[in-house]
Amino acid sequence: MIRIGLMGYGNLSRGVEAAIKNCDDLELVAVFTRRNPDSVKIKTENVPVLSESEIEAWKDKIDVLVLGGGSATDLPEQTPKYAKLFNVVDSFDTHARIPEHYANVEAAAKSAGKLGVISIGWDPGLFSLLRMISTAILPEGNNYTFWGRGVSQGHSDAVRRIEGVVDARQYTIPVDSSVDAVRSGSNPTLTTRQKHTRECFVVAEDGADLARIEREIKEMPNYFDEYDTTVNFISAEEMERDHKGLPHGGFVIRSGQTSEGTNHIVEFNLKLDSNPEFTGAVIAAYARAAYRLNSEGATGCKSIFDIPAAYLSPLSGEELRKSLL
Amino acid sequence: MIRIGLMGYGNLSRGVEAAIKNCDDLELVAVFTRRNPDSVKIKTENVPVLSESEIEAWKDKIDVLVLGGGSATDLPEQTPKYAKLFNVVDSFDTHARIPEHYANVEAAAKSAGKLGVISIGWDPGLFSLLRMISTAILPEGNNYTFWGRGVSQGHSDAVRRIEGVVDARQYTIPVDSSVDAVRSGSNPTLTTRQKHTRECFVVAEDGADLARIEREIKEMPNYFDEYDTTVNFISAEEMERDHKGLPHGGFVIRSGQTSEGTNHIVEFNLKLDSNPEFTGAVIAAYARAAYRLNSEGATGCKSIFDIPAAYLSPLSGEELRKSLL
Repeated sequence: MIRIGLMGYGNLSRGVEAAIKNCDDLELVAVFTRRNPDSVKIKTENVPVLSESEIEAWKDKIDVLVLGGGSATDLPEQTPKYAKLFNVVDSFDTHARIPEHYANVEAAAKSAGKLGVISIGWDPGLFSLLRMISTAILPEGNNYTFWGRGVSQGHSDAVRRIEGVVDARQYTIPVDSSVDAVRSGSNPTLTTRQKHTRECFVVAEDGADLARIEREIKEMPNYFDEYDTTVNFISAEEMERDHKGLPHGGFVIRSGQTSEGTNHIVEFNLKLDSNPEFTGAVIAAYARAAYRLNSEGATGCKSIFDIPAAYLSPLSGEELRKSLL
Repeated sequence: MIRIGLMGYGNLSRGVEAAIKNCDDLELVAVFTRRNPDSVKIKTENVPVLSESEIEAWKDKIDVLVLGGGSATDLPEQTPKYAKLFNVVDSFDTHARIPEHYANVEAAAKSAGKLGVISIGWDPGLFSLLRMISTAILPEGNNYTFWGRGVSQGHSDAVRRIEGVVDARQYTIPVDSSVDAVRSGSNPTLTTRQKHTRECFVVAEDGADLARIEREIKEMPNYFDEYDTTVNFISAEEMERDHKGLPHGGFVIRSGQTSEGTNHIVEFNLKLDSNPEFTGAVIAAYARAAYRLNSEGATGCKSIFDIPAAYLSPLSGEELRKSLL
């Protein structure tokens, strides 16, 4: 059994917990939190919830520590810190800071003889892998990434910060006609507005100025101003009934030529009932890989580009070749 | 420059040749043939076409030998044989014999300090990779593979062997309603007939018994009897005009659950103007990987499951993390 620890117990960690239940070779052994451990109820029986300050005592009792924190402040600090004690996996997604994060984790993990796997999930993660592979295979061509239909947590939060908004959910939606154009192999150049629309469901305070809220959403720089946005005001009951889940998905398309007039479309497509549960399942598979690679002597930092697929599966190489090749 | 040799000069080798032209770090240095070398005209200038018997003299002048032969008789013999002299890549696709082929190539390549990469292309190949990864991520679920719309060379050949048939082209076509059912997440159980239909275009001899030809096609065991098949008789001119290309494609779908009622669809989808050119492009990328892995000391046999994606790209790890992660 590969012993997994979870740092934090937000949506993502709960997704990893659900994934572990589906894996016979993975076992959740401890959850660490910055909150009062007594206030955190987890879904797995007989697994302790502990204060983050107690983690060092678990150095030899955890094979892989999964870091469920956020990319803005948690992971830049936590991933290098804990890579000195454990094999770690994170879902670091601040694109511009990946080189710096990689360097920090590489130094920490290398010196400790541990392995750190960063930026795991579906984007960054599986989408990156497919972009990379299809670009290597079709060097002459274009990459297109579409997200949705799905809930963007960042955009939902941004709407919630507007005065008079009680709750909000924002869906990112790919524009069908643009997707069709890409799939046709016409290699279009698409603006931000042509690729996605944004749809908001908003619960407003009684008596709030709805026209102002709608205007503030649609004109919000970076988040909404470059998109065609629809705003729907709904009741708290409708929000609870219709928008509880966190579905997401999207697709990466490479459209490329091998010779004059010969075009190929490579598409990777996800349709997810639950973004955190799927992301957690990806992380669980890479936690398995981290443990196995480190057991064979690999140390330092790795991204999804560096890990052979065979390490993700509990099956042996022989079984994989026989059943899935 | 990575120096590539081609064994054979059929459709697949020509696809690899086209791919090499798109790669600044790959160079075609020689083509070997069992035919009279003078009878083989290749598309790359100043590259020699030589008899297979001369290959040993090229031992130190080729970094990777691509084996373009067939899986029935060529590759079981050639891949182990040439893995004693070169790093090799093949597209071995006889599923039942992969374990045996792997063992033979492993022994030959290992003893010679070379690397052999087997079963590269899109199925086996990229489809296998996606099946494997998505199965590891979603252990509870089902895999579905659909092929087409595309030309099946084997089925076209089978029709051509019928008395009275001058030429034939067979298209494999996924059944839309079944594909939709899979994509909906309903996890259907599908029979062979429910997954694909077959469409034949046949040029018959003057005066041939068309009803008999159509009956013989539709009742042909293994090839057609388990499918709904359409037969269209056309002229030689129509065949030349409308069916010259070798388009293909298909998709691998994993439909799996992470918890009760929470389903995810992972789809990998190819739409290829030319099956051999795309397959050749995949092989070219894995030839790059074979050379780089062997340069770092890796020897023996590897499948697509064993090779980190980073090795497929001419970009450095740093460049990949910065631009594609």
